[in-house]
Amino acid sequence: MATSGKVIRCRAAVAWAVGKPLSLEEVEVAPPKAGEVRIKIVATAICRTDDHLLEGCFPNADFPVIPGHEGAGIVESVGEGVTSMKPGDKVIPLPLPHCGECSFCLNPESNYCLKYHVSESQNLLPDKTSRFTCKGKQIHHFLWISTFAEYTVIPEYAAVKIDAAAPLDKVCLFGCGFSTGYGAPINTAKVKPGSTCAVFGVGAVGLSVVMGCKAAGASRIIAIDINKDKFAKAKELGATDCISPRDFKKPIQEVVTEMTGHGVDYSFEAIGDVDSMTAALAACNMNTGVCVMIGVAASGAVMSVDPMLLLSGRTWKGTLLGGWKMRESIPKLVSSYLEKKFNSDLLITHTLPIAEVNEGLELLRQGKSIRSVLLF
Amino acid sequence: MATSGKVIRCRAAVAWAVGKPLSLEEVEVAPPKAGEVRIKIVATAICRTDDHLLEGCFPNADFPVIPGHEGAGIVESVGEGVTSMKPGDKVIPLPLPHCGECSFCLNPESNYCLKYHVSESQNLLPDKTSRFTCKGKQIHHFLWISTFAEYTVIPEYAAVKIDAAAPLDKVCLFGCGFSTGYGAPINTAKVKPGSTCAVFGVGAVGLSVVMGCKAAGASRIIAIDINKDKFAKAKELGATDCISPRDFKKPIQEVVTEMTGHGVDYSFEAIGDVDSMTAALAACNMNTGVCVMIGVAASGAVMSVDPMLLLSGRTWKGTLLGGWKMRESIPKLVSSYLEKKFNSDLLITHTLPIAEVNEGLELLRQGKSIRSVLLF
Repeated sequence: MATSGKVIRCRAAVAWAVGKPLSLEEVEVAPPKAGEVRIKIVATAICRTDDHLLEGCFPNADFPVIPGHEGAGIVESVGEGVTSMKPGDKVIPLPLPHCGECSFCLNPESNYCLKYHVSESQNLLPDKTSRFTCKGKQIHHFLWISTFAEYTVIPEYAAVKIDAAAPLDKVCLFGCGFSTGYGAPINTAKVKPGSTCAVFGVGAVGLSVVMGCKAAGASRIIAIDINKDKFAKAKELGATDCISPRDFKKPIQEVVTEMTGHGVDYSFEAIGDVDSMTAALAACNMNTGVCVMIGVAASGAVMSVDPMLLLSGRTWKGTLLGGWKMRESIPKLVSSYLEKKFNSDLLITHTLPIAEVNEGLELLRQGKSIRSVLLF
Repeated sequence: MATSGKVIRCRAAVAWAVGKPLSLEEVEVAPPKAGEVRIKIVATAICRTDDHLLEGCFPNADFPVIPGHEGAGIVESVGEGVTSMKPGDKVIPLPLPHCGECSFCLNPESNYCLKYHVSESQNLLPDKTSRFTCKGKQIHHFLWISTFAEYTVIPEYAAVKIDAAAPLDKVCLFGCGFSTGYGAPINTAKVKPGSTCAVFGVGAVGLSVVMGCKAAGASRIIAIDINKDKFAKAKELGATDCISPRDFKKPIQEVVTEMTGHGVDYSFEAIGDVDSMTAALAACNMNTGVCVMIGVAASGAVMSVDPMLLLSGRTWKGTLLGGWKMRESIPKLVSSYLEKKFNSDLLITHTLPIAEVNEGLELLRQGKSIRSVLLF
């Protein structure tokens, strides 16, 4: 039964142009059309990708836009034909949709969906219109989900119902950062028990990689970051060694290779820096080593790679959202969280009101936060 | 029982310096030391890698040198402690050794050996001396096996005994080119039945990739080369489509993507060109596509890669010698050949006396041969 109704006036953090601070505005949110749901966002975390968007480094984005893609909320109303959610359900919006119909969705080995932003712009909803206006202007969606708005309209296949017991101010991290990092070693690298791992960058995603490596049974987990303030948390979550490239004269991949004999079994790049990507590749062993790229590089960035790094046997892969088919997997991850199989709460260092979104972004830029959660 | 004896004087094609034609010389070949075998080379094919060596593009080579690494012969004598071969045995020298003791050899998932040239120079035998002299000068070995010499001395673990019924002028291809190409889809990509494949470059290695894709059950095999003279043979061996990049205005990866919907399941680069390597990566589907690099790029060549190509889910791998653990696998491949499970003879377009080695190299450079086999 469709419950869509009136336009809602509410708060949202709007990015009017590249390089400008976010502006907290009153916006109008139109009711959901067929196949869409309107969600009251309760909590949303700040991810580095939101900052990339604000810097103009996120591919194919349009301004003005409402950022945010790591949130959790409650269904307010649903459009015609929506069957998987109803008003009152707790949900997590999905930055990687799962249409369930495209050839990629139908492939059990894949979590990519042809509706994703890389294949098809998600700056407007599928009918090529926006549900947001502000001061008489149309505002673009971001990855279809725009969680920096108190109410947001999303295609049904870009959101998923979760357990009613889930604390939304905690599981909002499952929309992107935690799931991305935690899934990379489990789904993409398929880390084996007893293996060695190196994690380049231990922000929220990298720390979640550390948690995933530990869950997969890795015996040695080397955390690499230039910000040593992050090392205590990395160790708490499972890192066995923490090193800063600034403490060595030689390239960090050589340091890792010497620490491990011939390089680690698995390396992960969770920064989005092209030099770190090639360093991570070189840090895994030349033969059966697997390097997984997680971080999104700035639009237009190019990696320079010696082909011999691959020719001797290394495997290089990328992962989006940790390789999870999100509509199937996120509810299960939430259940595991409720069963205390892991503690992703440790990633949350700050909780702020939405009005302090710019302060939250600044904490991230200065390396003073891991995850800041914004509350509406 | 060691059978090592006197110095043998025989013919060899010597490369005195980079860029110079090979010179057929009389050389002295010292008897094998402990753990070595002296082999009478009966036939050796000319591989592009030999030409790379002559051009000075092969990493860490030393001149003067006797090239050649795709040969077959008969054991003449063995040094102390050699147990796996005896005089009179037919053998194939292995450009990728298999010491059986290093951590990589002990890893069942790997065919790399830490004794290989990339880790440890093979320009001299393991005791850091040469068995070759010519006109009073020491001549370097190439990949330890130097098959352009009528007699060559090789560490036991860089040669393997094969079936006495094997025709040496045919199975010499198993030392490198055929095995490398045939193994890449089977061992490294693990091509599934019914899948789509693209092969960049259909020289001897690429044609062997086509054979391997067909053996693995691929339903569509797209052969790509700028030399259309090779297309007839590619079709004979299993290619379903043959295309030349010169026939299209758009990049060939876009052509392949359009031909297949979202790109092939598996792509193979069998040229050794950095631009072809990135094109091959882009030609496989953005999600579960696997690209295998086979061709060896010129020393110092660098690939420029958009990280998004990997981030969406592609896998990029390299393979050496087709992923075969050579001492275990080459005798089995020879047996399969004798059972007519495949016909690698179709790769041999020319058979020449060793004295015509430079003519054979010229046929290769001009794209007029696939494999030329040289006979002593």
